[in-house]
Amino acid sequence: MKASAKIFNRPNEPFSDFEVEIPIPSANEIVVKITYTTICTSDLHTYYGRRKSPSPSILGHEIIGKIVKHGANVHKDYNGNTLIEGDMITWSVYAFSSGNPMDQIGIPQKSPDLFKYGHQTILNDSPLSGGFASHCILRKGTSVFKLSEALEACEAAPLNCTHATIAGALRLAGTLEGKNVLVFGAGMLGLSACAMSKEKGAKNVYAIDLDKERLKSATSFGATASFPASLSDEEIQDRLNSEKIDVVIDTTGNPKAMESGINLLTLGGIAVWVGAVYSTPKTQINAETVVRKILTIKGLHNYTPDDLAFAIDFLNSCHQKYPFKELVGQEFSLNELDDAFETAQSGTYYRVGINQN
Amino acid sequence: MKASAKIFNRPNEPFSDFEVEIPIPSANEIVVKITYTTICTSDLHTYYGRRKSPSPSILGHEIIGKIVKHGANVHKDYNGNTLIEGDMITWSVYAFSSGNPMDQIGIPQKSPDLFKYGHQTILNDSPLSGGFASHCILRKGTSVFKLSEALEACEAAPLNCTHATIAGALRLAGTLEGKNVLVFGAGMLGLSACAMSKEKGAKNVYAIDLDKERLKSATSFGATASFPASLSDEEIQDRLNSEKIDVVIDTTGNPKAMESGINLLTLGGIAVWVGAVYSTPKTQINAETVVRKILTIKGLHNYTPDDLAFAIDFLNSCHQKYPFKELVGQEFSLNELDDAFETAQSGTYYRVGINQN
Repeated sequence: MKASAKIFNRPNEPFSDFEVEIPIPSANEIVVKITYTTICTSDLHTYYGRRKSPSPSILGHEIIGKIVKHGANVHKDYNGNTLIEGDMITWSVYAFSSGNPMDQIGIPQKSPDLFKYGHQTILNDSPLSGGFASHCILRKGTSVFKLSEALEACEAAPLNCTHATIAGALRLAGTLEGKNVLVFGAGMLGLSACAMSKEKGAKNVYAIDLDKERLKSATSFGATASFPASLSDEEIQDRLNSEKIDVVIDTTGNPKAMESGINLLTLGGIAVWVGAVYSTPKTQINAETVVRKILTIKGLHNYTPDDLAFAIDFLNSCHQKYPFKELVGQEFSLNELDDAFETAQSGTYYRVGINQN
Repeated sequence: MKASAKIFNRPNEPFSDFEVEIPIPSANEIVVKITYTTICTSDLHTYYGRRKSPSPSILGHEIIGKIVKHGANVHKDYNGNTLIEGDMITWSVYAFSSGNPMDQIGIPQKSPDLFKYGHQTILNDSPLSGGFASHCILRKGTSVFKLSEALEACEAAPLNCTHATIAGALRLAGTLEGKNVLVFGAGMLGLSACAMSKEKGAKNVYAIDLDKERLKSATSFGATASFPASLSDEEIQDRLNSEKIDVVIDTTGNPKAMESGINLLTLGGIAVWVGAVYSTPKTQINAETVVRKILTIKGLHNYTPDDLAFAIDFLNSCHQKYPFKELVGQEFSLNELDDAFETAQSGTYYRVGINQN
């Protein structure tokens, strides 16, 4: 039996078709039939040439799918649940060898032998590694999670990128109980940050974005109030009604947003940056402010398997409370991938889905 | 009986003389006869107008002294040792009300009712609050520590500023066991950082400074190697012989140094900034580097009482291993304070001491 895939060759060039024999999984591998993939903003960065990525490759990493066949050593998922053929699963965006120095310091996502789904050239021994394909081969060192049937496919697909990254960011932010959180950017990451902060006990969550529609969405995802990015720091301060900002989450990567975050933080505050995954002008930091206010800035890229586990629990517990499923504005088939990317790039929707169910 | 003091009125103006009746300590106060004060670089920043500070005031906060008289409620020091008249003590540079919101989040040095020795106007009810005086009145909420007789006065005076701040910085840096630490600035803070990092188990400690003599000192204080600040990041990288920098301590406040620190950190690294306590140009941070390398930046201003306790233990355990006493290059009497400041400002010595023993 053959798997079909859409190949990214060069920025701005139509995807090409690719077929390959579906291999028999080795002892630690899983063959997955992909059911749903969402187009992540970083897929758009790659496709539209805003960042360099290996090619030819199969893009797409916000993926879920069903187990077709698993190797002899695959018995349980990350949480200890038994895995069988037909189970709907999500998995960590990368595979790594546990126990390496990066794993030991808590950042397995920087392991030297990292294999990243949706980011590998197909010119290797395991070409089925991305989400814009009929199948994906999960290799040893991938953290696999069985999904609840209560989750809709379009809700579950962004788990292993958006929600897991935000789970990591909020882990770095520390306890949120009774604190005020300010989220820069009300895109997919920002909305996840609003809802997850609220669920983690934040007193108030505030969102800032350039786009009015997105600001409205933020309030549907737990934000107490949202502010247009055109406001000055002083104007934002005024609208906070004497509430202090303890935690800032930057999902934009925009230097002005990160600078504003530092200015708005109160004594002992913490800023977590996750948005700056592309080249931007330098962020201008007043170091005296950082020192005198005893601030912390933490960068985060990707996440740990525990973060993904947390994100899944989060979504299971509150997918009916927040309108996650409305975030996928339009669905396409795998064959319509070029159109899907064009629609995603237009910015009309939070996410565009490739439905293969 | 009267106490005498030297008053700071305005930048660059000779200190004026001041006398005041020594009060009888209230229940929670201690009257201290000051024996030794070192001139801290921040005293120089104030006196030479590089930062604003309350005036008229008694400067000087790197102080030790002997208990002349204590109030009825004063029985024990921070470590539980009994306090009696004649005991040599050091104390936290500030007094605060325990349990306030800032204390609760671990930064008592930002308490709303903070009283800072060496930084208060004399126009209040407790004028004897600085080190350039014969006496100091310690108020309620000051963490007091009995000093070992094995420490020399000139070694012990910088404890409650320099060494305690570095103890706080290394607390924020986390475990140093087996790690490589790069210290920017080989002044008093930098040398303390070199020695304390080494004692905390760092594999290698490196120091960077503009001044060749200071770089030599760094190696006497535990640095494996030291580099002139004129080197580029690439040249420093070359001299590290493939060693990675896990922790950066910035004691300079110089944006170029802080930028260099971020560039030189390895994956998962942490930079602690303590030097930027004066106004400088913005520090230009590549946010993508912070995110992709999963870096942390922490600012620290002052320290907690536990940090001072740690610093005292540190000095007790290794004051004979590192030449701390050689760092005070010249001593003056309190009456020679103007000359002492001029000598300190010349930069010839790490510290200039006011000896009243």
